[in-house]
Amino acid sequence: MKIISKIFLGLFTIFLIVSLSGYFLFIYANGNITAKVISSEANLSNLKINSLSIVFFLVSSFILIITTGLIVSLSIMKPLEKIKTAVSERNEEVYLSQNNEFAGLANEINKRIKYTEKEYKEILDNANDLIQSVDKDCNFIYVNKKWKEIMGYSEEDIKSLSLLNILKSDQKTHCMDLFKKVCAGEHLENVNTIFISKNKKEIFVEGNISPKITNGKFISTIGIFRDVTEKKQVEKEIEKLNKLMIGREVKMSELKKEIKELKK
Amino acid sequence: MKIISKIFLGLFTIFLIVSLSGYFLFIYANGNITAKVISSEANLSNLKINSLSIVFFLVSSFILIITTGLIVSLSIMKPLEKIKTAVSERNEEVYLSQNNEFAGLANEINKRIKYTEKEYKEILDNANDLIQSVDKDCNFIYVNKKWKEIMGYSEEDIKSLSLLNILKSDQKTHCMDLFKKVCAGEHLENVNTIFISKNKKEIFVEGNISPKITNGKFISTIGIFRDVTEKKQVEKEIEKLNKLMIGREVKMSELKKEIKELKK
Repeated sequence: MKIISKIFLGLFTIFLIVSLSGYFLFIYANGNITAKVISSEANLSNLKINSLSIVFFLVSSFILIITTGLIVSLSIMKPLEKIKTAVSERNEEVYLSQNNEFAGLANEINKRIKYTEKEYKEILDNANDLIQSVDKDCNFIYVNKKWKEIMGYSEEDIKSLSLLNILKSDQKTHCMDLFKKVCAGEHLENVNTIFISKNKKEIFVEGNISPKITNGKFISTIGIFRDVTEKKQVEKEIEKLNKLMIGREVKMSELKKEIKELKK
Repeated sequence: MKIISKIFLGLFTIFLIVSLSGYFLFIYANGNITAKVISSEANLSNLKINSLSIVFFLVSSFILIITTGLIVSLSIMKPLEKIKTAVSERNEEVYLSQNNEFAGLANEINKRIKYTEKEYKEILDNANDLIQSVDKDCNFIYVNKKWKEIMGYSEEDIKSLSLLNILKSDQKTHCMDLFKKVCAGEHLENVNTIFISKNKKEIFVEGNISPKITNGKFISTIGIFRDVTEKKQVEKEIEKLNKLMIGREVKMSELKKEIKELKK
């Protein structure tokens, strides 16, 4: 049941009880007086004033009830509705330009959402991946601890950093094509590219990029990358070792041949 | 200003306006009647009924106002306070056993929190780490997609799985000691252990474990691990290659020595 209907039902019930008791009270008082002034001219006026007071009482009670309803709806239902709309529209923040219990509730809701975000951001900060969130203009909205650690940029640097600043020159065109795809709503897996850290080191990364979409509107891209620089180096090392090994094998069979020749 | 005070102030203002206008109306009506029945016995009774009606009007209006206050506080301030408390205590869910606008708001707040959680869980699912959340009884509360992929367990399996089930036998004592530390509030870095996947494969992991604490109470551990099985294998391979290489070197110098001898 709606609160407004509940309040009005409650008020009308009291109104009914008060009116009925008032009506019987006046009937009783009127009866007494009527008996006393039965022969007097005042009888008619007396009855007139009684009905006048009843009408006045009814009208004023009615005004009270209607005004109560208006006050309640203005001071309660409106901010309630405003909070509900802001919450259901998944706004980043619920804002009320008031200073009452509803503003207090809005504030608590904001804190609650921030708390959940903080909880998860802590998890993301503990992750071993480089996580970055970039808006449609290529500005960084969020990067995690590992990202800052590997890329060498501070929170302050990131404010003025663009996605283009961290891409290796030969990767820019390719990456911007991918970026546009994600902005259009695509989720990309197995993206391979090369970042350049603050101190110009090449960081080989592979990972995936997803769009963050709220109320059907693109908000940002979320990229989760693994630093594969070390892996690439190890792969190179194994390749080198294998080549060396082959060289040694060739050399050895040559030596063995030579021994064979010499032994003849 | 508090809503309740605002409502009461509004109601008392109307009450004052209505009372004053009622008083002057009765004075006016009474004056007319008094003129007509000036010599009659009814005059006194007439005045009596007027004051009776004024008192009755005042009392009934007062009852209306007090009852309005009670209805408003019961049907509005109580659920509002309940929602606020649940939100500020960071409960998982805001629950109201009602079916009105407040229940609607509570529902929207729940959906909003779930939405933020879903957003972040999507990021966690895209991560390349194995992420697991375990409660104080070693039951799994959450694992991400990568965890399920590498460990081979389904969402259904996980419901009845304990942390002990996924640890290699020789790791259990050590890991349980670490687990107790995290339950006591410690954050652990560089944890190295071996998981056993559903199909009995050894998964070498390294990572960190943090406690999730809400309102000063331990809720769960959050472990973020990197699968280093491949890395360990590669390391072994390099070691093997290096050993082979040394063997080859020794063999070669022997062969060279032999050649030297033969050439003499």
